[in-house]
Amino acid sequence: MEDLFRYLDDHLGEALRELQELCRLPTVSAQGKAIEETAEWVAARLHALGFEAEVLPKPREGNPVVYAYQAGDSPRTLLFYDHYDVQPPEPLELWSSPPFQPTLREGKLFGRGVSDNKGNIIARLYAIRAWREVRGGLPCSVKFCIEGDEEIGSPEMEEFVAEHRELLKADACLWEGGGVTWDGRPQLTLGVKGLLYVELAARTIDRDAHSSWGTVLPNAAWRLVWALATIKGPDERVRIDGFYEQVRPPTPQELAAVDAMPDEEEETLRSYGIREFVAGLSPREARRRHIFDPTATVDGLLSGYTGPGPKTVLPAEALAKMDFRLVPDQDPLDLLEKLRRHLEREGYGDIEVRLLSAERPARTPVDHPIVQMARETLRRVYGKEPVVVPSMAGTGPLYPFVSTLGLPTIDFGVGYPDTRIHAPDENIRVEDFLRGAKAVVALLEDFARAG
Amino acid sequence: MEDLFRYLDDHLGEALRELQELCRLPTVSAQGKAIEETAEWVAARLHALGFEAEVLPKPREGNPVVYAYQAGDSPRTLLFYDHYDVQPPEPLELWSSPPFQPTLREGKLFGRGVSDNKGNIIARLYAIRAWREVRGGLPCSVKFCIEGDEEIGSPEMEEFVAEHRELLKADACLWEGGGVTWDGRPQLTLGVKGLLYVELAARTIDRDAHSSWGTVLPNAAWRLVWALATIKGPDERVRIDGFYEQVRPPTPQELAAVDAMPDEEEETLRSYGIREFVAGLSPREARRRHIFDPTATVDGLLSGYTGPGPKTVLPAEALAKMDFRLVPDQDPLDLLEKLRRHLEREGYGDIEVRLLSAERPARTPVDHPIVQMARETLRRVYGKEPVVVPSMAGTGPLYPFVSTLGLPTIDFGVGYPDTRIHAPDENIRVEDFLRGAKAVVALLEDFARAG
Repeated sequence: MEDLFRYLDDHLGEALRELQELCRLPTVSAQGKAIEETAEWVAARLHALGFEAEVLPKPREGNPVVYAYQAGDSPRTLLFYDHYDVQPPEPLELWSSPPFQPTLREGKLFGRGVSDNKGNIIARLYAIRAWREVRGGLPCSVKFCIEGDEEIGSPEMEEFVAEHRELLKADACLWEGGGVTWDGRPQLTLGVKGLLYVELAARTIDRDAHSSWGTVLPNAAWRLVWALATIKGPDERVRIDGFYEQVRPPTPQELAAVDAMPDEEEETLRSYGIREFVAGLSPREARRRHIFDPTATVDGLLSGYTGPGPKTVLPAEALAKMDFRLVPDQDPLDLLEKLRRHLEREGYGDIEVRLLSAERPARTPVDHPIVQMARETLRRVYGKEPVVVPSMAGTGPLYPFVSTLGLPTIDFGVGYPDTRIHAPDENIRVEDFLRGAKAVVALLEDFARAG
Repeated sequence: MEDLFRYLDDHLGEALRELQELCRLPTVSAQGKAIEETAEWVAARLHALGFEAEVLPKPREGNPVVYAYQAGDSPRTLLFYDHYDVQPPEPLELWSSPPFQPTLREGKLFGRGVSDNKGNIIARLYAIRAWREVRGGLPCSVKFCIEGDEEIGSPEMEEFVAEHRELLKADACLWEGGGVTWDGRPQLTLGVKGLLYVELAARTIDRDAHSSWGTVLPNAAWRLVWALATIKGPDERVRIDGFYEQVRPPTPQELAAVDAMPDEEEETLRSYGIREFVAGLSPREARRRHIFDPTATVDGLLSGYTGPGPKTVLPAEALAKMDFRLVPDQDPLDLLEKLRRHLEREGYGDIEVRLLSAERPARTPVDHPIVQMARETLRRVYGKEPVVVPSMAGTGPLYPFVSTLGLPTIDFGVGYPDTRIHAPDENIRVEDFLRGAKAVVALLEDFARAG
């Protein structure tokens, strides 16, 4: 390992320049920017590192996927999942330096995508280069699957994976990224929540009415409010029939892992300016819920007049945006049907439910052998005990990899608590980038040996 | 009467030109436009008709009130309440001719204010001119109180009336305006609902959170939804403790008057594109509620992300605009306190309630002698049985006139069902304008005689 690590130490400047080059491409999938260009850039880099690389279309729409393969010494294959697209940089005025002019200062690199996910792509390529340059080849076979729609919900990723089942065959998957805690412990994450994102649209009359009609005309805002109140009440329990039916209880190992995570609840409360979590949850209960429980969130409300002063209007239309974060084995499309049936049963069948996004949840078991292996790899590289996180509270297209491909997945990366993904001044610390590349170098060796 | 009516017939063109001149002034109180100019114009016209006229300030803020007095033959005094301000003309593109260039076509005059309320002001001045020109003076004393804030909720009108109690002393009051039904029956309206307009503002955390925090962080949109659902449920009953306590039941005479109003419910349903009223109300029940029941209306909702596509955000803030239309003897400030106590009791004491507007309800009894007198006046002038409406479903500053001054009030005017007050293409029919002036001429005589 020392020879490989030394190579990384010696070539850090080059790797950072390569990352800056990639981050200058404004690959905003939500705005359809620089997509082809970035996919080609990534494929060319993979090709230069000895991969067979191609740019594959998604089934109907969506941005292309960069697929690459390189054989290694062991019979085992590690699949890397990444994404080359980034979040919109807005609001621009909150950036200290322009988001697409990545800038080094005080040991950090600032720019959109430096952490999520371009920094991880480059760290992984950098690790592969070390193996090739120092040892003449890879210790195991490696595949890359780098998509361009992750930031807009990865439409058609399930279909893409199903269609390319053979191509993507592997023994395990390293997921897109993660980071270290404030005290430098690497996080090893094993799953994601699923997502159902819908719009609820109430329409009661043909046009807005004068509010003096409030006695007798149906008000879309009221109907929406009443309908929402049937979905979740102040006890925070979701009231959709069968909503919790498919929830797989956490295993004792998963519970133990979450209980062993660092106490950051007080910091969360402080950061949001509040004294307690909903329903008076204790910090430990809150952490368990954050990882293991599904959610029902109102993301937005709009109806009638919302400007300054009084305007007396009875609204004809009202809109709510809602998302549900789902846990194994909840299925977003099944829940969509349950939501529709719920509204029908409660007397709100007139409220239109529009599907905007759906992703399934997935987890790799905490006691899977690859988790133990990756813990040891990370402990060796970071010199600290890794934090095992059974699932993110967030979402990603992990399901087809776990379920369709049957892969155990692990997830770590180059970030840190102030890495600000999706936000202005996204940044990574150079030390974490280097350490993250070293972790990939070590993982390749450990993974190859384990086979 | 015939001599007076002939005068009106002969001078219609002049009166319409005078109305056009007044309507060219863009007196939009919501935008603070042309206020002083219009007040001076009105005061000058009154002065030219033999009134002592002055422009009085409201107590602290608000637009000035034009006050005028002229003695007549009988010892009785009739007070006219009007307002010289108009609604904003927007959206301009929906006008067939510019709102402040009043235009005659097909027997109608189009322009902002031609009906509400400048058309009524001019019709009343025109009636007074007839009396002076034809008979050399007025049959009774007449006072005018013409304010400039009616379209923004008449702030401080209660205080103004209390302060000028002696000045405004009279025996009865003719309210601002009204119109005829499609079949030409004049409407005689006797009251208004009150209004409480508030903003409810929920704020749970210091800044919006990623929606993955939906398990544990308090969501302002949810809190607002739950709080609103405690205020009124799908049964349309307001749940604020004591909300109905002060509601004075309609008298048998009031009920009979409402039951005798023309059946226009089917037309209302058709016009709003629906098949039935809330809670399956019959047309007769709906009409009774529309006139006699208080309301609780959500006028607007705003929270979180409401743009296109999915954005996963847990909102820190949420806003609702609400109005309550009140009936005698409900008091908006008492209800404001009850609303606050209600939210407190239901566990939503953190939701801020901001007062935006408050007006009290008022009615003159259907069996008051002046009502019978006015019915006969109108029957004589229009040749049809008047429709007696115990109360508008809408609001106006009637309360201080009824309560502080102790005046019986009646209300009729120059509009018709398609008069479009507050809307684009506001218009009156020239025939209704002339007939409305004749009704005022006749009322002055009947009122003077009755004393």
